[in-house]
Amino acid sequence: MSQSQLKLGFILHGVGPGWDDWRHPDAPVDASTNFQFYKKQAQAAERGKFDYLFVADSVSINARSSPHYLNRFEPLTILSALAAVTERIGLVGTATVTYTEAYNLARQFASLDHISGGRAGWNVVTSWLEGSAANFGKAEHLAHDTRYRLAEEYLDVVQGLWDSWEDDALVRDKATGQFLDADKLHTLNHAGEFLSVKGPLNISRSPQGQPVIFQAGSSEDGRNFAARAAEAIFTHQENLTEAQAFYADVKSRAVGFGRNPDQLYILPGARPFIGSTIAEAEARYTELAGLVSLENALRALGRSFNDHNFSVYDPDAPFPEQVAAEGVKSNQSASGRILALAHEEGLSLREVALRVATPRGHFIGTPELIADRFQQWLDGRGSDGFNLFESVPGQLELFVDEVVPILQKRGIYKTDYKGATFRETLGLDVPENRNTARRAIAAE
Amino acid sequence: MSQSQLKLGFILHGVGPGWDDWRHPDAPVDASTNFQFYKKQAQAAERGKFDYLFVADSVSINARSSPHYLNRFEPLTILSALAAVTERIGLVGTATVTYTEAYNLARQFASLDHISGGRAGWNVVTSWLEGSAANFGKAEHLAHDTRYRLAEEYLDVVQGLWDSWEDDALVRDKATGQFLDADKLHTLNHAGEFLSVKGPLNISRSPQGQPVIFQAGSSEDGRNFAARAAEAIFTHQENLTEAQAFYADVKSRAVGFGRNPDQLYILPGARPFIGSTIAEAEARYTELAGLVSLENALRALGRSFNDHNFSVYDPDAPFPEQVAAEGVKSNQSASGRILALAHEEGLSLREVALRVATPRGHFIGTPELIADRFQQWLDGRGSDGFNLFESVPGQLELFVDEVVPILQKRGIYKTDYKGATFRETLGLDVPENRNTARRAIAAE
Repeated sequence: MSQSQLKLGFILHGVGPGWDDWRHPDAPVDASTNFQFYKKQAQAAERGKFDYLFVADSVSINARSSPHYLNRFEPLTILSALAAVTERIGLVGTATVTYTEAYNLARQFASLDHISGGRAGWNVVTSWLEGSAANFGKAEHLAHDTRYRLAEEYLDVVQGLWDSWEDDALVRDKATGQFLDADKLHTLNHAGEFLSVKGPLNISRSPQGQPVIFQAGSSEDGRNFAARAAEAIFTHQENLTEAQAFYADVKSRAVGFGRNPDQLYILPGARPFIGSTIAEAEARYTELAGLVSLENALRALGRSFNDHNFSVYDPDAPFPEQVAAEGVKSNQSASGRILALAHEEGLSLREVALRVATPRGHFIGTPELIADRFQQWLDGRGSDGFNLFESVPGQLELFVDEVVPILQKRGIYKTDYKGATFRETLGLDVPENRNTARRAIAAE
Repeated sequence: MSQSQLKLGFILHGVGPGWDDWRHPDAPVDASTNFQFYKKQAQAAERGKFDYLFVADSVSINARSSPHYLNRFEPLTILSALAAVTERIGLVGTATVTYTEAYNLARQFASLDHISGGRAGWNVVTSWLEGSAANFGKAEHLAHDTRYRLAEEYLDVVQGLWDSWEDDALVRDKATGQFLDADKLHTLNHAGEFLSVKGPLNISRSPQGQPVIFQAGSSEDGRNFAARAAEAIFTHQENLTEAQAFYADVKSRAVGFGRNPDQLYILPGARPFIGSTIAEAEARYTELAGLVSLENALRALGRSFNDHNFSVYDPDAPFPEQVAAEGVKSNQSASGRILALAHEEGLSLREVALRVATPRGHFIGTPELIADRFQQWLDGRGSDGFNLFESVPGQLELFVDEVVPILQKRGIYKTDYKGATFRETLGLDVPENRNTARRAIAAE
């Protein structure tokens, strides 16, 4: 068996995923809506041969939201802009099935896929912020299981629309005047539990056939959805042991659904703090952790518990497990993880909040040590790669210049892009067009 | 009074607005989904100091649709990509109020506005293709007047969302840790006839305050909507006399709504055929007109009459006015114009169809003649400028190299962009933030 290759994504997060990351002395405070900042990061990641850029999302805010959520680019627009200034890197955008018309979403991702020459990916989410419904004229948020049922139907509709055009539907013969082979343009005529969409889509398939499907939920429903339908899963894992259990579980679910488990990548988040010594790396973590106020740490914690207001409790008393447990309605895996952590380690509210606000993670040290850990997770079947956050400004460049060469030297990371499309880069199959497949069966 | 300045937009239309334009020997058949083609046109237009690029749109197709409609980029994604490879030119995208969530639309245009440094424009349309509803799970299309009522409410919601953030809401003081002045982030709390949207939007105002509002309907409802709410109107005018009447009518309606008529530009479409001699220009028109089959000309005609199938009538009998009149439900001004033309000139069906498929327009001739006509329309108050279609490949470059210098020499067209934002380029006011205005009143 040949050596597995690490897959790496870089998460574009503007001012940073933590509540007070923007306060770092080197952080540009307008990063989240600064195109030049995004362009620079995208080009640095491409220099490091990252497989893809990743843009997270949400569709509601309030005055208590984290700076990163408050004010930022919308994923499809920023990724389209970045498509124009990059050549090979994949472009993965988050979009919700709950509050976007399926026809529009299918179309925009297909358009991004054409603009980029076949580099689009869609991270399918079911919005979990309770405030979102009110921005879309909906009375209430859907229950967790309902959302995943919607997600499956929605994905099927979007992929069906993506297959509206067979690859040879566009004849475009100037001599005869035939532009289209009308038999190869297909309506979808979908009418299901949640959606009714006729089609066809008004844009053809791209060079990679269809955008790559990502999924980011790790709950029971999320795992099944990913195992059935996703090609990459963005997950959070506390340590290698948990990661290995998750990895084995999701891959075996994929096999259970009749899939080749190698066509589903498991990619935990990672936020390396790299230094020329371990002490320097630790100092960078300590500096970042020191930027967060208790108030904001409590808010960060609240996000996983339906924006529960934790500031009313004594921060130095034990974590209020009962209250928190009542607040769990969605984003189940994150809140469950925090409850378990608090319980097992007997932490105070303050300790839990600060830990949540600035997780240490497992990747603090020298470039060699980061590479060791990555290899350990890869070879230990804890992951197929990582989604990288930049912990503090400058870390992306450091990673590209100092960690990537080590990974390449060890033969666990590519030295260049293998092909033009995102699927070629990842080694993912091009999905067969369902209409072409149907025609092939009919012709037998 | 200083000399009026021509405003010029360039319409990015891929394979061309006519049914068989793609058959032109120099036309790249894949132009509509070819990013390099779009980039080249965008950069040429910017070299010619065009005020903006314009992308039309529709949200449904069938096998009988025009090649240009069938398969093309989605406006927000292609404009975002072009934002990254242009510096000063405005970026105007068409989007429908009928089938897009207002929160998503507001957000994507605001995001484009930030990405481009304040160069976004929104062409507000109420989708008029009957097939669209079925792509969005809607039972039927809205009536014409209902659509405009929706458009007004929708625009108000979108502009309200764009004002969610006062300009100084983002404090971002690293020393104190204050990111946001929460008093300057506003919910909209809209609940109207068609929409219910809470807000706030999760992206702040751009350097130009708000995207510029375009409108493209010329019916009675469309004129009133434009006069009340638009900053530019994209119209079709058969000749200067009609254009002058339209111009006077819309400007006076704007005054009637209490607006400064100079803050509403009237921009008819123009499709110049430029040649070094008139004969050469005429030959270019004749070549293009000769590419269209009768079958496709009849389809092109059908588009203005709810896709009515005109191929069942004798093409050389008089135009079937009665039948056509019954087909008029929407896109009223286009169909009305065709009916009037057929009636007044007593044309056969074939003649009407060919005239509709490849209109001659008023701009066929040498660069000097094109400049003369443009000046005549400008000085005669028939228009404030034009939306240019490229008639046949190469005409955009010809226009930039040979017509633009003449217009500049005459002092009716800028020699460079005046400012960084689209509003500065057009000389349009920055809209006051409604929430800042409210605060100012409250403070009095």
